Amino acid sequence: MEIRTYLDEQRHKIEERLAALMLEPIGPFAQHIEAMRYSLFAGGKRIRPILCLAGAAAVDSGEPTRQRALPVACALECIHTYSLIHDDLPAMDDDDLRRGKPTNHTIFGEAGAILAGDGLLTFAFELLSGVTSAAIPDPTRIRIIQTIAHAAGPLGMVGGQSLDMMYEGQQVGYEELRRIHRSKTGALITASVACGAMVAGASGDQEAALKTYGNHVGLAFQIVDDLLDVEATTAELGKPAGSDLMADKVTYPSLFGAETSRTMAREAVQEAIASLTPFDHQADPLRALARYIVDRRK
Amino acid sequence: MEIRTYLDEQRHKIEERLAALMLEPIGPFAQHIEAMRYSLFAGGKRIRPILCLAGAAAVDSGEPTRQRALPVACALECIHTYSLIHDDLPAMDDDDLRRGKPTNHTIFGEAGAILAGDGLLTFAFELLSGVTSAAIPDPTRIRIIQTIAHAAGPLGMVGGQSLDMMYEGQQVGYEELRRIHRSKTGALITASVACGAMVAGASGDQEAALKTYGNHVGLAFQIVDDLLDVEATTAELGKPAGSDLMADKVTYPSLFGAETSRTMAREAVQEAIASLTPFDHQADPLRALARYIVDRRK
Repeated sequence: MEIRTYLDEQRHKIEERLAALMLEPIGPFAQHIEAMRYSLFAGGKRIRPILCLAGAAAVDSGEPTRQRALPVACALECIHTYSLIHDDLPAMDDDDLRRGKPTNHTIFGEAGAILAGDGLLTFAFELLSGVTSAAIPDPTRIRIIQTIAHAAGPLGMVGGQSLDMMYEGQQVGYEELRRIHRSKTGALITASVACGAMVAGASGDQEAALKTYGNHVGLAFQIVDDLLDVEATTAELGKPAGSDLMADKVTYPSLFGAETSRTMAREAVQEAIASLTPFDHQADPLRALARYIVDRRK
Repeated sequence: MEIRTYLDEQRHKIEERLAALMLEPIGPFAQHIEAMRYSLFAGGKRIRPILCLAGAAAVDSGEPTRQRALPVACALECIHTYSLIHDDLPAMDDDDLRRGKPTNHTIFGEAGAILAGDGLLTFAFELLSGVTSAAIPDPTRIRIIQTIAHAAGPLGMVGGQSLDMMYEGQQVGYEELRRIHRSKTGALITASVACGAMVAGASGDQEAALKTYGNHVGLAFQIVDDLLDVEATTAELGKPAGSDLMADKVTYPSLFGAETSRTMAREAVQEAIASLTPFDHQADPLRALARYIVDRRK
């Protein structure tokens, strides 16, 4: 399959649905909603929602399943976007540029950006519990909400970001690096694939296999992110290149060098693809996504 | 009924359950969890969880219902605590004192406090979707999650806080003041009573009556908060008295004077109690709570 065409198509469908589900910037809360929309529609790669749709398709590629998975995919993107807004804040990574545009707080102020993040996080749970997800059976919805809340919560993404802050400027080893990545990035990526699988009515074995896929893909994604931060230019990334180095953060290249890091990313992708053995051609998008994740340039 | 004894008992039961449900400050995320726990166990009034339990008891005062309502009550307190942590941040109200103790960010830093808030908000949805709430039927859980997410979200509490920030230092009128309060404080208070009612299996009419109660009580609560900010001392409040005046915020006393404001609060309480007419003595805690809310000194 042609991965670029596939990604463009998926991104288009996700953005169409996000636009339909997101609040309009009208009425008394227009300014707050505008701040949420600014980052939500800033042209992200939409990797997490695409992984959610591809995870669903691996189990059942029918259109009804895909329609049921779309609001879950949108909720995941709301949560990812909130995390970027808060990570960029002056009190955190203090970044001015994200996806090639000024970061949320440089436009809406710190208070506006904190609240835009809070709003997107909360809105994600509205999407998962509201009429927009009503086609998913209730017990499955509850499991999806729990999976996402856990992955995004204190033992997942938020916890990982707090470790990342805590270790900044410290000499930490591989174990800590893995823990930061597993929680900060890996948990939500794995949850994205897993929730897609749940929507599609995956068996326990299928869900376990797709979680394994998610764990490996999450690792590969993070190693490549670290590599790109060293190798790519700011123009390619749409955010300041070399910012990890500047912030004195431990990364895969800083621990293992660029070459070994790239090998580790390739191995993780191979393991991700190997975990898809029980699946037929319906999992081809997941296979192509795994390969894309190491080959991408931003 | 003796309201102080009742409040102490309820608070004790809520804090006991919160302590059992909350993450322990051990393992790699200990520091982050410690920051969440610091504010969660800082001795709040626990008004929202108590309203949730009292709302449930008005419909069904049996012990099984109360046990089912407790995790929902705890989730509400997590969300309320997160909102206080974020409201106190330097970028927002910049408060150093809360509940008589240094605010979260003065202890854990701005990044730590932002993440503690994010963690508590997300953890609330883990509580609502996890095994701890499994005794509530799934369709009811979904409705509860939606009710809370909506009340806390962009058109509720977060939206209200963003209005509050936006209007600071501006001459706004009664309409805007009402809108800020309804969204910032009223929505979660009403949701607290309503979710208690849902857990108890309230009929549509009962739920509607309890929402009306919540709306009036939320209004009374906010008017009294405004009055206390003017009338009480910092020692009584546990947070800086006069901070609304300092921040040039429009309040009930600034618009209507203290005497009229107090009359408005009393009227709201009367309306709250009137909305409980369909309920028997099982709603006595709600009646006593409404009266307490105007008479409290902090």
